[in-house]
Amino acid sequence: MASLAPLLREIRHNAVLWFLAVVPVVFVTRMLRPEAHTLLFALSIAALVPLATLLSHATESVAAKTGDAAGGLINATLGNLTELIIALAALQAGQYTLVKASIAGAIVTNTLFMLGASFLIGGLKYHVQDYNRISARLQTSLLFLATIAILAPSIVPDASLAASSTFTHELSVGLSVLLIGTYALGLVFSLKTHRELFGASGHAEAGEAALPLGIALATLGGVTVLVALVSEIFIESVQQAALALGLTPAFVGFIVVALVGGAAEMASAFAGASKDRLDLSVGIALGSASQIALFVAPVLVLLSYAIGPTPMSLLFWPGAVVMMLISTLTAFFTTSSGRSAWFVGVLLLMVYLIFAMTLYLLPPAGQ
Amino acid sequence: MASLAPLLREIRHNAVLWFLAVVPVVFVTRMLRPEAHTLLFALSIAALVPLATLLSHATESVAAKTGDAAGGLINATLGNLTELIIALAALQAGQYTLVKASIAGAIVTNTLFMLGASFLIGGLKYHVQDYNRISARLQTSLLFLATIAILAPSIVPDASLAASSTFTHELSVGLSVLLIGTYALGLVFSLKTHRELFGASGHAEAGEAALPLGIALATLGGVTVLVALVSEIFIESVQQAALALGLTPAFVGFIVVALVGGAAEMASAFAGASKDRLDLSVGIALGSASQIALFVAPVLVLLSYAIGPTPMSLLFWPGAVVMMLISTLTAFFTTSSGRSAWFVGVLLLMVYLIFAMTLYLLPPAGQ
Amino acid sequence: MASLAPLLREIRHNAVLWFLAVVPVVFVTRMLRPEAHTLLFALSIAALVPLATLLSHATESVAAKTGDAAGGLINATLGNLTELIIALAALQAGQYTLVKASIAGAIVTNTLFMLGASFLIGGLKYHVQDYNRISARLQTSLLFLATIAILAPSIVPDASLAASSTFTHELSVGLSVLLIGTYALGLVFSLKTHRELFGASGHAEAGEAALPLGIALATLGGVTVLVALVSEIFIESVQQAALALGLTPAFVGFIVVALVGGAAEMASAFAGASKDRLDLSVGIALGSASQIALFVAPVLVLLSYAIGPTPMSLLFWPGAVVMMLISTLTAFFTTSSGRSAWFVGVLLLMVYLIFAMTLYLLPPAGQ
Repeated sequence: MASLAPLLREIRHNAVLWFLAVVPVVFVTRMLRPEAHTLLFALSIAALVPLATLLSHATESVAAKTGDAAGGLINATLGNLTELIIALAALQAGQYTLVKASIAGAIVTNTLFMLGASFLIGGLKYHVQDYNRISARLQTSLLFLATIAILAPSIVPDASLAASSTFTHELSVGLSVLLIGTYALGLVFSLKTHRELFGASGHAEAGEAALPLGIALATLGGVTVLVALVSEIFIESVQQAALALGLTPAFVGFIVVALVGGAAEMASAFAGASKDRLDLSVGIALGSASQIALFVAPVLVLLSYAIGPTPMSLLFWPGAVVMMLISTLTAFFTTSSGRSAWFVGVLLLMVYLIFAMTLYLLPPAGQ
Repeated sequence: MASLAPLLREIRHNAVLWFLAVVPVVFVTRMLRPEAHTLLFALSIAALVPLATLLSHATESVAAKTGDAAGGLINATLGNLTELIIALAALQAGQYTLVKASIAGAIVTNTLFMLGASFLIGGLKYHVQDYNRISARLQTSLLFLATIAILAPSIVPDASLAASSTFTHELSVGLSVLLIGTYALGLVFSLKTHRELFGASGHAEAGEAALPLGIALATLGGVTVLVALVSEIFIESVQQAALALGLTPAFVGFIVVALVGGAAEMASAFAGASKDRLDLSVGIALGSASQIALFVAPVLVLLSYAIGPTPMSLLFWPGAVVMMLISTLTAFFTTSSGRSAWFVGVLLLMVYLIFAMTLYLLPPAGQ
Repeated sequence: MASLAPLLREIRHNAVLWFLAVVPVVFVTRMLRPEAHTLLFALSIAALVPLATLLSHATESVAAKTGDAAGGLINATLGNLTELIIALAALQAGQYTLVKASIAGAIVTNTLFMLGASFLIGGLKYHVQDYNRISARLQTSLLFLATIAILAPSIVPDASLAASSTFTHELSVGLSVLLIGTYALGLVFSLKTHRELFGASGHAEAGEAALPLGIALATLGGVTVLVALVSEIFIESVQQAALALGLTPAFVGFIVVALVGGAAEMASAFAGASKDRLDLSVGIALGSASQIALFVAPVLVLLSYAIGPTPMSLLFWPGAVVMMLISTLTAFFTTSSGRSAWFVGVLLLMVYLIFAMTLYLLPPAGQ
């Protein structure tokens, strides 16, 4: 099959993809030793990273082949497919705390760790780097809006009323619709009416050589199924493994799941930074964060009515709201100048370290 | 009476003013059917909108005739006369929750709805619009200061002490004096020592043809009395009507009263935006918000010692503080570039919609 | 002794230093009337101000003589020596509330009062003043990071877990190490890798004539001992004096101690502003605040394990966190343009007045 050649070449040249060999190992281990939670947890992480990389590459290839407008739309909706599939697996299992921790964690990880490491990697090679600040401002504004949506229940005059379940669920559906609508209008703004403000850099440029459309579509379909199957095993094992490793559930959801889900984007963002193409890195980091906040999270809320055991609300525990608010403000402040040096990366990473350390040190007995 | 001609011409050309015919209907209905709260509520709104428009026009005419410095001062103190009169009626009735909801609502409505709709209206006609960002920054800084003043009780080391009534009232009077003083110094800064930074655009330019001074002063006096009388009926009926319509008191105070009180300014702001005079729109929206926060609200606190049943404090319920803080930060961020496009308006309106929806969905049993 | 001549000339020319005569009076009074708390409180303040001025001058002289890199480091670590010694005295006495109030107070006083008064003093003489905004941005970013560190415990999913003492102390040590590390990297960034961005203005320029190195070192050593001895008397008397004067402990820690500790820097900052050298004023005010937040405070936490009766945590009461957050955001917003006029100073001072008034009016019975 000559047409598979580009896919195989891709796998041969990208060391991360060698880990695809772990995928069958996960399934075999799951059948033979279903109670080996910590092992399954480690294996499923090792399998998800190369699958996410392949999925990301397939999405970009499809986007690159379908022209600008459709391509932009595909990237904008499927760019966080791995995160979406993992969250869907947790949603079906009714693990809403994990779903929310992974959403909040993805936003925090993208705006602080991915962006900060990009600035640091770029800054260690180049004295000062510039990027399109209008684009960064659009994404941080969207993130700010999503944070306000999550803060909404705190504005009611009488907190006891806000606890009403009907109110919470009506509000969550309403807010989800508003966020998806704003996300759609934001795409119209950046891809259509004011595209000249946002430069030429997009996700699609990251891929060196796009796969042919047929291969890309087949890869997209096949890998999606694999990610879904591995995610289920990951979700099953994560809680037990966390206990065994002495990690708090909040740390696992916030830090581990978010790093696993975003591994593919991080590779692209860091590569962009080290090639002095910081527009690409900032676009991936902030674009991915705003996509999760304004598209993935609200879609999960709406889907919970169809596939979840009970409806899921859009409300997070106060600490998650504080983290998202701080991350958004930090990203807003650090990107408002459109200029970066290594210390800007250090500052972002320090905020991330403060969060990670706090969640790591927390006594694991709770929650 | 030839001298009344400009006033009559004004009324003939402005469709809103035809609703002045509702004014006598309100008074007659109040006498014949004092218990028809919902009807009186609707009629008093229909009467307040044209009265506010006329009042605003009369204020501007007086300001235009009295020269720059005095005119600026008149606009700065009487620009929100309608809001002030409505709030005074609620103050005399001892309805402090409604007074505070309408103050907070006016600030939120002006910074999010009026500003956002102006950006959207302008942005749908013009690709990108510029305005004086120094002026916007002054107003948002003043708003930020007022929000900090309202946050003051949250800084005390021991929350139980902050609940002391003496402390609350001494603090409220002190903060009110500070805010009015800052507002006065802000006028000196923008109208006198650094006026060159703030461009030429002011309220007075909004009126196409100013009324002669005599007519304007007579209108100002007469309409003020009418607004006061209608406001009393409005305040009497609003609570009952809200119950009958299934609206929460918070929604009525925050959204309905604020939209009614600001109708006249909105008309001017939207007209400015559609004529590519965004300086005017931003000036009206943010100037009006900061005037309410730093002048109207503290004046009401001080007046409550003279005309209210008990002194009113400057402290708001936490949700109102959160809304004012978010509105101020949103306005600060979106106006810091001095440049606008339609999507900036969408973002501001979405924040407003999040607030309005949350208050609307709240179960009405409470408070 | 000819070599003492510059020090004596310095004392003769600087009126503040005449108050050095109060120093022996403090020690004599302490021996003769140890129970005269209010008198000792007043005398120790009168002695600390000239000592702090001398200490600051000696530090700058040493820095000026040792070359750029070492000098920058000396200024960066010993610039707040007076605050550090006073806090150490309180730490040894186990008065952790006072230590924390004076840390938070120093940050708030420097960012609001010192910066605001500099802008006002400069603005009354010059129409508009410019300064290096990159430098201001670095310092406010560091302050923002420190505030996030102090906010860290609020991000945990389960507040009851955060109350655990082990967690609090492990987290405090971890955060302290992170902050000191970031501070050190910030020095590398501003003094070494990107020094060209930060202009030429530094602390050392403030002194008109540096003392010879030998005299400066001897002064540094001798005055440090004197400050330590007077600080002990100050800390002993402050609580009783506050009660006698009807001041709340929060007001004393936040306002009085902070103003005393920062008197020397304020003199330099105000002198810079009135000579149109606003870079110097902004550098002293914000540099000093970030030094206290990222160096003095974490060092005190780590030292408390060695010299305090029990370990001190890095956690502040919520009101102090709110004040530090507001101060940081206010400084960030007002310095983001790199341009100032008198009203900017008024705004900063008003925020300070709001805080001071709130703490002053608080009923003194509590805490």
